[in-house]
Amino acid sequence: MFYHEKKLQFKVRVEKPDPNFARMLQQAIGGIEGEMRVCLQYLFQAWGNRGPAKYRDMLLETGTEEISHIEMLCTAVALNLEGANGDVIDQAVADNPVVEQIMGGMDPRHYLSAGLAAMATDANGVPFSGSWVVASGNLASDMYANVMAEATGRTLATRLWEYTTDPGMKDMLAFLIGRDAMHQNQWLAVLEDLGGVQSVLPIPNSFPQELENQEVNYSFISTNIEKPDDPKTRWTTGESIDGKGQFKFEHLRAMGEEPVLRPPMKAGHAQKEQM
Amino acid sequence: MFYHEKKLQFKVRVEKPDPNFARMLQQAIGGIEGEMRVCLQYLFQAWGNRGPAKYRDMLLETGTEEISHIEMLCTAVALNLEGANGDVIDQAVADNPVVEQIMGGMDPRHYLSAGLAAMATDANGVPFSGSWVVASGNLASDMYANVMAEATGRTLATRLWEYTTDPGMKDMLAFLIGRDAMHQNQWLAVLEDLGGVQSVLPIPNSFPQELENQEVNYSFISTNIEKPDDPKTRWTTGESIDGKGQFKFEHLRAMGEEPVLRPPMKAGHAQKEQM
Amino acid sequence: MFYHEKKLQFKVRVEKPDPNFARMLQQAIGGIEGEMRVCLQYLFQAWGNRGPAKYRDMLLETGTEEISHIEMLCTAVALNLEGANGDVIDQAVADNPVVEQIMGGMDPRHYLSAGLAAMATDANGVPFSGSWVVASGNLASDMYANVMAEATGRTLATRLWEYTTDPGMKDMLAFLIGRDAMHQNQWLAVLEDLGGVQSVLPIPNSFPQELENQEVNYSFISTNIEKPDDPKTRWTTGESIDGKGQFKFEHLRAMGEEPVLRPPMKAGHAQKEQM
Amino acid sequence: MFYHEKKLQFKVRVEKPDPNFARMLQQAIGGIEGEMRVCLQYLFQAWGNRGPAKYRDMLLETGTEEISHIEMLCTAVALNLEGANGDVIDQAVADNPVVEQIMGGMDPRHYLSAGLAAMATDANGVPFSGSWVVASGNLASDMYANVMAEATGRTLATRLWEYTTDPGMKDMLAFLIGRDAMHQNQWLAVLEDLGGVQSVLPIPNSFPQELENQEVNYSFISTNIEKPDDPKTRWTTGESIDGKGQFKFEHLRAMGEEPVLRPPMKAGHAQKEQM
Amino acid sequence: MFYHEKKLQFKVRVEKPDPNFARMLQQAIGGIEGEMRVCLQYLFQAWGNRGPAKYRDMLLETGTEEISHIEMLCTAVALNLEGANGDVIDQAVADNPVVEQIMGGMDPRHYLSAGLAAMATDANGVPFSGSWVVASGNLASDMYANVMAEATGRTLATRLWEYTTDPGMKDMLAFLIGRDAMHQNQWLAVLEDLGGVQSVLPIPNSFPQELENQEVNYSFISTNIEKPDDPKTRWTTGESIDGKGQFKFEHLRAMGEEPVLRPPMKAGHAQKEQM
Amino acid sequence: MFYHEKKLQFKVRVEKPDPNFARMLQQAIGGIEGEMRVCLQYLFQAWGNRGPAKYRDMLLETGTEEISHIEMLCTAVALNLEGANGDVIDQAVADNPVVEQIMGGMDPRHYLSAGLAAMATDANGVPFSGSWVVASGNLASDMYANVMAEATGRTLATRLWEYTTDPGMKDMLAFLIGRDAMHQNQWLAVLEDLGGVQSVLPIPNSFPQELENQEVNYSFISTNIEKPDDPKTRWTTGESIDGKGQFKFEHLRAMGEEPVLRPPMKAGHAQKEQM
Repeated sequence: MFYHEKKLQFKVRVEKPDPNFARMLQQAIGGIEGEMRVCLQYLFQAWGNRGPAKYRDMLLETGTEEISHIEMLCTAVALNLEGANGDVIDQAVADNPVVEQIMGGMDPRHYLSAGLAAMATDANGVPFSGSWVVASGNLASDMYANVMAEATGRTLATRLWEYTTDPGMKDMLAFLIGRDAMHQNQWLAVLEDLGGVQSVLPIPNSFPQELENQEVNYSFISTNIEKPDDPKTRWTTGESIDGKGQFKFEHLRAMGEEPVLRPPMKAGHAQKEQM
Repeated sequence: MFYHEKKLQFKVRVEKPDPNFARMLQQAIGGIEGEMRVCLQYLFQAWGNRGPAKYRDMLLETGTEEISHIEMLCTAVALNLEGANGDVIDQAVADNPVVEQIMGGMDPRHYLSAGLAAMATDANGVPFSGSWVVASGNLASDMYANVMAEATGRTLATRLWEYTTDPGMKDMLAFLIGRDAMHQNQWLAVLEDLGGVQSVLPIPNSFPQELENQEVNYSFISTNIEKPDDPKTRWTTGESIDGKGQFKFEHLRAMGEEPVLRPPMKAGHAQKEQM
Repeated sequence: MFYHEKKLQFKVRVEKPDPNFARMLQQAIGGIEGEMRVCLQYLFQAWGNRGPAKYRDMLLETGTEEISHIEMLCTAVALNLEGANGDVIDQAVADNPVVEQIMGGMDPRHYLSAGLAAMATDANGVPFSGSWVVASGNLASDMYANVMAEATGRTLATRLWEYTTDPGMKDMLAFLIGRDAMHQNQWLAVLEDLGGVQSVLPIPNSFPQELENQEVNYSFISTNIEKPDDPKTRWTTGESIDGKGQFKFEHLRAMGEEPVLRPPMKAGHAQKEQM
Repeated sequence: MFYHEKKLQFKVRVEKPDPNFARMLQQAIGGIEGEMRVCLQYLFQAWGNRGPAKYRDMLLETGTEEISHIEMLCTAVALNLEGANGDVIDQAVADNPVVEQIMGGMDPRHYLSAGLAAMATDANGVPFSGSWVVASGNLASDMYANVMAEATGRTLATRLWEYTTDPGMKDMLAFLIGRDAMHQNQWLAVLEDLGGVQSVLPIPNSFPQELENQEVNYSFISTNIEKPDDPKTRWTTGESIDGKGQFKFEHLRAMGEEPVLRPPMKAGHAQKEQM
Repeated sequence: MFYHEKKLQFKVRVEKPDPNFARMLQQAIGGIEGEMRVCLQYLFQAWGNRGPAKYRDMLLETGTEEISHIEMLCTAVALNLEGANGDVIDQAVADNPVVEQIMGGMDPRHYLSAGLAAMATDANGVPFSGSWVVASGNLASDMYANVMAEATGRTLATRLWEYTTDPGMKDMLAFLIGRDAMHQNQWLAVLEDLGGVQSVLPIPNSFPQELENQEVNYSFISTNIEKPDDPKTRWTTGESIDGKGQFKFEHLRAMGEEPVLRPPMKAGHAQKEQM
Repeated sequence: MFYHEKKLQFKVRVEKPDPNFARMLQQAIGGIEGEMRVCLQYLFQAWGNRGPAKYRDMLLETGTEEISHIEMLCTAVALNLEGANGDVIDQAVADNPVVEQIMGGMDPRHYLSAGLAAMATDANGVPFSGSWVVASGNLASDMYANVMAEATGRTLATRLWEYTTDPGMKDMLAFLIGRDAMHQNQWLAVLEDLGGVQSVLPIPNSFPQELENQEVNYSFISTNIEKPDDPKTRWTTGESIDGKGQFKFEHLRAMGEEPVLRPPMKAGHAQKEQM
């Protein structure tokens, strides 16, 4: 069950509104690296969590925090869309060219569809997709999905930080960059809590590993047509990361035949020549 | 540049064709956990790779292997769609109810759109989306994206293995489950090669960490309205996973104000009452 | 800024788990009539709201409530996926046919992708789309968008109520149906607060109506090739609903010419015969 | 059954072609507020209409008119793409920089994919989606969906009108703005014909209202953590809009328990630690 | 400009309503092979047509006809959803299990979202996408796109014809199959009118063919790792279809180098180890 | 099974990096006319091919070649994103405005999401969709789908060729334009191999043509409300292209009645007034 408070988690100030930057911030709202994805991902993981309750509780805590991040970013978009200074908006009707100028490289839908506000889309106006919300029911898979989300998310936030010269925006982004640092640590802490990489891997660790194909489960398979020698890298030789095998280096070889499919069924109406 | 061989990487046999299972296998082809995603993800990461060439080479090797996995699964779908035995297809025209029966719980588009073959969709017929292909330009982000893809992918493969009773299909899945075990190890080996978790985190490690907000970058922020005490978990106390901070436990508090937006611009035609 | 409490807004009980019903409930989560849409729609409207603050406050209140509804429905999906009784899950490994049976008409991804939990999709597994989140910046447009969302949402909920025979599910749905009744009233109350239909219409009411085409702005235009007489309905005759015109009945007539486009530009490489 | 006439419903003139404006007009073609949506929405509502035939007839009339609006807008896009003056197109091959200049802020696909013509997309090139076509089988839901479509549509049209300075385009938009005024009135006239708001609400009115939860069906539930007093607004006190209840103001309270899910099924291969 | 008539282009009768078949018919409405695609494709091609007007006129004629086909199919879906006989619908409320039974393998959204009517989706409930509407501005490209649409469309219609045993449905499909035969001929007739394959190819024929790479423009390039000999097929030897070259057979060879990308830009925040 | 070689199929040089052109090249990667589509289309057609093996072999050959084309284009995007000269990237951190300038009309996600590399999207950042991969099981349908893909693809490539002034890019595009010329010929050669148009049509040729509606299968049906005379074009008179009929010219006429649907089912909760 959820509550709100009218204040923001962190202050959002924009000194020099920049409609182009508003467009870029959308990537951090409705993009695949964005806050809508992590918010919904953590909440759906919490709501479907089976097993020890402490993981569910933690996911609920952080999923809820992320709603506040969406709120901060949406506020930042709205403020950046207000134009170069306070007068611009009032001039807009009297002076059409100003409208035109505002439109420069901004997302035209910020004006046309939203009347100068954030949307549930990415920086190109591509709508947020529920397909990005990963909640697999396997806690370790989900933790890696979360690390990945925070890693691409923090990378995005640093790129936004580099792009803007507005001190208010840099401040807000530095806050989000800090939170993403914490969250990367947090999800990896769960993996440590689960016993660490050697206990956790291969995911799912509940599938009896003796049932997987033993010939190929620790082999780096080279598909290079020139059949190079083992380059002796960390992933082709030595103990595997999970401590359960030895890395090997092999060249691709056919362990199957050329496939043969039956002729088409008549009701499927292939061409006569295929029958 | 790419070549093919007509044989399959691993044998694909179906003893008891099962159109329902064909539908489920689609998740492993065109679903977000599927082979099209990993294949394209590794290839796009290779093609955009900047920095030491060994990572690019490795991504190209494994990205190419994944095309062979899509091929195996598409073959498996086609074979599973051939019906309960060899005669079914020939009877289909003479005996319409048989067609109807084949349709049971299968994806109707396997018949209607593909004439008994695989499609570039998931188990619900939802098309594969290029938005799932993550290639961020940050190697560590990408490696976590790859671990996540192989972790959800192997989880999916074990669920398919549990569902089917066909020995040929179990054999093929045991092969893919083995390869996914290797690939999880492989991507984590890259992270070790990059110096291990403490060196790699927080991602991106090229952003000067002193620029991020120092008040919140190692705090677990509780959003629970009941303001619980620190539960003393691995993620609320002790050294952070990256070794660069100490976990703290805090309650959510407002560090910002209630936001105030300017009135709408006139050309945006809000209602008069908003102006 | 947002908080949570671990209890649900309303009790969620499932007496006879039904995986098919789990699939149907997805429509109320990630479908266009579902709670993710209303939740995000109200929150985005709040975050982008310009004008009197009371509307923003109200949108924030109700947007926050809707998160709790998503939570209830996701819980209901997870409980419905648990099978016919407590033993089913434990039998699943020992006894494969049980797994198969569970899969009946359910969404296969509930098992394959989510491990028996809700997803951010509709009843056909089609992902939630951010394109459904309407926040136009015009308060009256948005209120009608909200009435529509609650009207289709309540209709959906009554259909789910009719379908299930589980008393726990009927109870939960009766709660949601009640809330949707309130919310329909609530959004229409805002329209009354804005002055009522005659003041609000035509939306946006800030566009000077004398600038719209005066010949056609109150005409019902019949496109029926048989050129029927005015059927004398409420929408073809009498005062218009906004009280600002008289309905008229007309037959479609061309007020424009056949369009003529210039030949293709050379760099666009149409066929030679088009140039 | 449908017929066409080669003339346009209203004249489409472009004095100063503007490829940027062509891009913006796409929102009114293939965007969620656009004419493809209303056209298909009214036609699908007509084709699935059950009950008195007069509603079906009306929907068919207006759905057909909307095809003519798509046609006008597509013509406007093609004309706006023709460049600054008649010579531009001929110069394009001889003089590459001109091509480049045309490309300014326009949608590159207008050149690359369409050869200077309209597409079935919105202003950001996002494809039209059939998911936007609402036809619920409940006439009142559908009418509110239609009012909403015309309200956001007219708002969009006024924003386009403000943006352009081309008299031909302003003229065409004034026509569409006029039609949208009529259509808002028209759909509300149906609701009046159905008995007016008090008879129509809560939608669906065929669900026995005594079966909905009586504790919450007229309550405004505040989720504000500061537990404010009743603000005494139109939506928290007094008679409800449907005349069937009294608005109340309440604070959010838990009417359910913390949910408890069973452990994962074995075949779902969660991590061992979850079992 | 468009008109309608209330009668259908061809009679639509359903003797034995079949909700499963309703689902399948959706493929012919909102699927990629369906009538919404051809309808919009021909109309957008017409509205953007540049060059001789006769092609535009023809596209407008047939695009308009296709609206009537969508109408027929939507009617067929609604009739198939009415259940096994006239009483079923009335029994539905009194006798809940009947509702349940109707739901068998049907699209649940036909009941939940549409109240027993057609939707703008395919047979899996995936929404129609505007991305399928091909109108390239090159008439020959478009004609091949149209042949392809009618070829996959007629194949789909024959599969639907095989599946159903309802004489009314077979009759309607035989009509559509006949129209698709005509339309395949029609689009190829345009290509003949444009001078036939040798004149039309390679598309676009307005690009000076001497500017394309002359080494590879008539070579079949074999990527088979076993380097087979020329199989002497129609596409590896003899005159090319366009009469402008001789087919050759070659093995894939590298005409480029291994690509080298510069190190990452600093502001992009790759990992330090990549710099 | 697939192999790679580290060299490219054709050299990719960029003399003057152009981030705008990088964006345009995306259309040739992840757009509907792009190489991802043809690649996957030919491979899925091969993997599901039923009938003579020579077609399968050929599809596999060319599908594999197309992977190399995606690789070339992704390389070209990465090189074009490197900025105006070698120093730009190094200056980017020191000199923020340069970053800003690079962003001009480019896809912001090339910087934000990909760190200066290609993505699996089109020129507007819209993700590649698996729905575009056509593999119908009918060989002739598929060949026309392939001709269409190569025709729109070659048209796109010529437009890109016209746009760029970079000699390296023109060279690469001339290579791709040459390959597309070959591939158009190749797919038409298959149709000739299948007996030529008169044997192949109407597709599918395995459906007994006497079962289709004989009244309308060679008629051009005019929907023009003015009832024009037969314009005596190639598609209204004379022998049909398939040689199996005579083209006729007719005016649209109703062969069906006005449809009548039963009242809504009660459980569907339409409004009372519809029942």
